[in-house]
Amino acid sequence: MPFTAGGADDEGSPIYGVKIPAGYREWQVVSVAHEAGDIPDIRATLGNPVAMKAFRDGTLPFPDGAIIARLAWDFVPSEENNKAFGRSQSFVAGSPKEGVQFMVKDSRKYASTDGWGFAQFFDGKPADEAALKGCFSCHEPAKARDFVFTRYAP
Amino acid sequence: MPFTAGGADDEGSPIYGVKIPAGYREWQVVSVAHEAGDIPDIRATLGNPVAMKAFRDGTLPFPDGAIIARLAWDFVPSEENNKAFGRSQSFVAGSPKEGVQFMVKDSRKYASTDGWGFAQFFDGKPADEAALKGCFSCHEPAKARDFVFTRYAP
Repeated sequence: MPFTAGGADDEGSPIYGVKIPAGYREWQVVSVAHEAGDIPDIRATLGNPVAMKAFRDGTLPFPDGAIIARLAWDFVPSEENNKAFGRSQSFVAGSPKEGVQFMVKDSRKYASTDGWGFAQFFDGKPADEAALKGCFSCHEPAKARDFVFTRYAP
Repeated sequence: MPFTAGGADDEGSPIYGVKIPAGYREWQVVSVAHEAGDIPDIRATLGNPVAMKAFRDGTLPFPDGAIIARLAWDFVPSEENNKAFGRSQSFVAGSPKEGVQFMVKDSRKYASTDGWGFAQFFDGKPADEAALKGCFSCHEPAKARDFVFTRYAP
């Protein structure tokens, strides 16, 4: 199964010890977004079944076991689509970029960060401790939604 | 289950008689895209299990039973995200727009359109015949990939 990433022997993230959840690419989509700027991307936020149920039910805080994944790809103009549309308007997902990020809810294990553990992986390798130190503080503005920026897109 | 759309009694699309597949919002994501222009959107293409297997295996043509869904949402700047990033760069999915579109593979039923039936629904109501007449011809440029524009985003 080429789309199943991670496994028991993989290296976990620093600080939080989060491993790549097996099969995360098969999870349902919470929403999508575009980050413009110097290195534009297009991204999708996926959730495991526990997270998706919470998003749909509006349950806050997210229950233990919820995992949220952020995938991102290069933001690439599509000449092919533009031809079909008859004008230049279309941007699609290119190569994966910026790694994949996870938020894992475990209210005991991650009590000091309001129950969330964070991780980022590049080609299966965890980002270093410096990269993870800002995760929790950066999510602080979304505290009212249990530190999750992404809203469910119906 | 508020995310399960459609049912046996729902009205099908003109020409093709495609109904809204139950539970399509729970399908896995093929890829994401942004259409700029006058009415910008951000969109996700989802696939049912038959379609996802074909995308991942690179199977062409898509086998009977494959269904591909296109969801789209308003392309909305996120002030909340911009504050977190420290600059104006973030666009997220707003309200659903442009309805939801489906391509359904049935090589016998839809033999005259190379095996694909098309549908578009607005709030559960099928778009009219005029709206569907262009579907197949518009997908013609992607004939080499069995008329499917979207490529799988790993």
